[in-house]
Amino acid sequence: MGKKINVTIWNEFRHEKTDDAVKALYPDGIHAYLKSVLECDELNITLAALDDPDQGLPDDVLNSTDVLVWWAHMYHWDVTEELANKIRDRVLGGMGLILLHSAHYSKVIQKVVGMTGHLTWGDEVKEVVWNINPTHPIAAGIPTHFILPKEEIYGEPFQIPEPDELVFIGWYETGHVFRSGCTWRRGYGKVFYFQPGHESVPTYYNKYVQRIIKNAIFWAAPTGDEGYQIQYGSPYIGGKFVPDGEIEGFAK
Amino acid sequence: MGKKINVTIWNEFRHEKTDDAVKALYPDGIHAYLKSVLECDELNITLAALDDPDQGLPDDVLNSTDVLVWWAHMYHWDVTEELANKIRDRVLGGMGLILLHSAHYSKVIQKVVGMTGHLTWGDEVKEVVWNINPTHPIAAGIPTHFILPKEEIYGEPFQIPEPDELVFIGWYETGHVFRSGCTWRRGYGKVFYFQPGHESVPTYYNKYVQRIIKNAIFWAAPTGDEGYQIQYGSPYIGGKFVPDGEIEGFAK
Amino acid sequence: MGKKINVTIWNEFRHEKTDDAVKALYPDGIHAYLKSVLECDELNITLAALDDPDQGLPDDVLNSTDVLVWWAHMYHWDVTEELANKIRDRVLGGMGLILLHSAHYSKVIQKVVGMTGHLTWGDEVKEVVWNINPTHPIAAGIPTHFILPKEEIYGEPFQIPEPDELVFIGWYETGHVFRSGCTWRRGYGKVFYFQPGHESVPTYYNKYVQRIIKNAIFWAAPTGDEGYQIQYGSPYIGGKFVPDGEIEGFAK
Amino acid sequence: MGKKINVTIWNEFRHEKTDDAVKALYPDGIHAYLKSVLECDELNITLAALDDPDQGLPDDVLNSTDVLVWWAHMYHWDVTEELANKIRDRVLGGMGLILLHSAHYSKVIQKVVGMTGHLTWGDEVKEVVWNINPTHPIAAGIPTHFILPKEEIYGEPFQIPEPDELVFIGWYETGHVFRSGCTWRRGYGKVFYFQPGHESVPTYYNKYVQRIIKNAIFWAAPTGDEGYQIQYGSPYIGGKFVPDGEIEGFAK
Repeated sequence: MGKKINVTIWNEFRHEKTDDAVKALYPDGIHAYLKSVLECDELNITLAALDDPDQGLPDDVLNSTDVLVWWAHMYHWDVTEELANKIRDRVLGGMGLILLHSAHYSKVIQKVVGMTGHLTWGDEVKEVVWNINPTHPIAAGIPTHFILPKEEIYGEPFQIPEPDELVFIGWYETGHVFRSGCTWRRGYGKVFYFQPGHESVPTYYNKYVQRIIKNAIFWAAPTGDEGYQIQYGSPYIGGKFVPDGEIEGFAK
Repeated sequence: MGKKINVTIWNEFRHEKTDDAVKALYPDGIHAYLKSVLECDELNITLAALDDPDQGLPDDVLNSTDVLVWWAHMYHWDVTEELANKIRDRVLGGMGLILLHSAHYSKVIQKVVGMTGHLTWGDEVKEVVWNINPTHPIAAGIPTHFILPKEEIYGEPFQIPEPDELVFIGWYETGHVFRSGCTWRRGYGKVFYFQPGHESVPTYYNKYVQRIIKNAIFWAAPTGDEGYQIQYGSPYIGGKFVPDGEIEGFAK
Repeated sequence: MGKKINVTIWNEFRHEKTDDAVKALYPDGIHAYLKSVLECDELNITLAALDDPDQGLPDDVLNSTDVLVWWAHMYHWDVTEELANKIRDRVLGGMGLILLHSAHYSKVIQKVVGMTGHLTWGDEVKEVVWNINPTHPIAAGIPTHFILPKEEIYGEPFQIPEPDELVFIGWYETGHVFRSGCTWRRGYGKVFYFQPGHESVPTYYNKYVQRIIKNAIFWAAPTGDEGYQIQYGSPYIGGKFVPDGEIEGFAK
Repeated sequence: MGKKINVTIWNEFRHEKTDDAVKALYPDGIHAYLKSVLECDELNITLAALDDPDQGLPDDVLNSTDVLVWWAHMYHWDVTEELANKIRDRVLGGMGLILLHSAHYSKVIQKVVGMTGHLTWGDEVKEVVWNINPTHPIAAGIPTHFILPKEEIYGEPFQIPEPDELVFIGWYETGHVFRSGCTWRRGYGKVFYFQPGHESVPTYYNKYVQRIIKNAIFWAAPTGDEGYQIQYGSPYIGGKFVPDGEIEGFAK
């Protein structure tokens, strides 16, 4: 593909300003750190934050975004209903959406996927992330499992629709499990939720976590090669037979 | 099950008052007609309409409904955001939801399932409904196919998430096809969308259509036998191991 | 349902004769123990073992079985190809199939589901079984999780097709996870695989394990209410339109 | 990907020798015709036929094939059990498999997917193929629908497991519908079944049909970038914790 993928990494970007431990890990914000490790020739990465003008996503940015990466935690309800609806419509129209960690509770995932996102949560403990879908594009380069020495417990029951594909399962030393990597297709858009990434632990420094997010961006990006575009609205066709005056598609 | 299933059949109930052809078919409303053919010992059926007080669904009715049947066509946007949100929350909490015909465009399905519902539509023509999932509870008693002499064309592309189960495919004499019977699980609730049922044709007089709706009600009803209730909110568990002081569940 | 469900519980029934520890737990065999705890008015339970005549499943037994429960471990390859094929055909024709523990490697599951069943395995350690699908009929009455003090490690990667429904996930104290309860629909038959149940530990004494197996039997049993029977072979219909001389199904 | 994809197109290649009408359409065989229209820089295409030595698939060919395309109709039972088992093992190990038309009845699909493939069939009539999954890689470049003036009727009920993804639905002028394009993941292999392609009609001359087959080859090809290889057999790990002496994957 000659054309670069336009990626926008959106972040609440508040913890990093108010919490010293988070600031130490991600001085320029989680979004900026992710940009630094994801950058490559095929990606054109833009940063956006909740406290930017237009909550970081003016129409021209949103409408030219191919894949939106969303990190959010405590301020889901500060995102305007209007913006959440615009994002939903863009996803249904084909924009990829990568939801990180606490984004399980974001307005965006609730509107797009149809879920509450309720779960069980607890302190940071050891997590083992298991790759149960090794041929999935999002699992490319990921071994059977990898270990995060400390990650916030996110445990079942997790209120989500049956994922189209379950890619990762998380194990915690406290006896909990979690569906840590899930895909859903909604409208023309592809959605991936990935659980690791609490702000107070260096999860995004892990090369497998980085690889998973990069894989997901390539997986979720629209190809531009669809045979037809999304249909806005529902066209009326009367009682017409599907056009067959001319049989198309035959080489001879 | 000793306990009856509380079913509420909600209808816009406007066409039947203003359109003579519809009135002739369903003089007391589609909802009342459906009640008359669905009534049986196991079901306790309530009627509700858009122009009733509280849009037909005051809290006490909604909160005691086990399965909500929803017929809607032209006035989706008259349903208040507040009511649509309450219904969504009830479905995520376990209430069954049966969406009939033009309800593909209702606020409720958009919020619950996560979809736009755009499709292609046209005049009334012959439809053949194919049963492709004969062991599904919703298909009990339904032959390989049945014929509706006239039904409104609802054609692909239909913008829906991959159904958890595809039960029926519709064929139209104009060359169109449609995923006519689809299930989705959302939260603790079961959702079924069924395409036939335009107001101007006697589709609901068809005994297979009646059987499908009745089957779906029994399928979607919560059993009351779940091992745990839906969790509202996300409980914090600290760093506690799952309780294992006492190993439960062993007969000796 | 007035008619009883015919259940056949098949067991290798060799460990119980040769291994004192197993004999102590299940002196009459795992199959006989399961029968003793599953018996109820709705079930008509038959026992069968590998070393019985016809490997326990003469045609008259197999052909009258509604749900086959299969416990196997070390002697998968002693089951004749002919019997495995007969079982496959019965499942595709509608017989329910419940595969317990090491049956992940049985000829039957390989033929019916299409899988190798390779996994990672290890010693007996503590397992926590998580119920991630609380509204599934197989999960009725099962809490968020229950604990097995000792169970053989069965770990991912587990080579199975994406389950139609994932009901249970197992957690092991050694850091492993497993898709412990999986459903697949094949032909007209419903299939459930359930991982707990090593012969050397008292797993089948656990009331939740018992309940899950009983739930699965009811879930997998054919209803006898399908609208059409399985089609053996592929009928030729010429160029005939679907029969529409007479429009069936209308009440008037 | 610098490396070419090794594609083997297998064909019974008997109709083309004995039936003049088929010979006129595909004088060198369907496989040779497909090769001629699929050839491109990224593909390295080999031809194979049932009457070749080793039934066209000696071990060195089979073991170096990335994607196997299979056209078969009348001689499924001439394929040896041994070869069918080898193909199944290769698919479970990662080889892509594209099954064309009457291959719904092949030994290979039965063993790999777990299905009988029974269906309803009839004469050649007009078919409309609907693309219901426009963002699927196999649907790239395919419009909402295309028309085949004559194609053999393959109608529901079609005895298949719920596809992982349903990509195409076929409409026939005789009132029948069919799940015409289905994907399944089995082990490490990706499987696609595509219904059009009867030997007596020029379906493979249609550019959309050609594009679909080409898309499916790219979709089904193993990437070589999986994080771990398929596990043959089930390794014993004792009671060992997942290795965590050294936490891998962190950049610092």
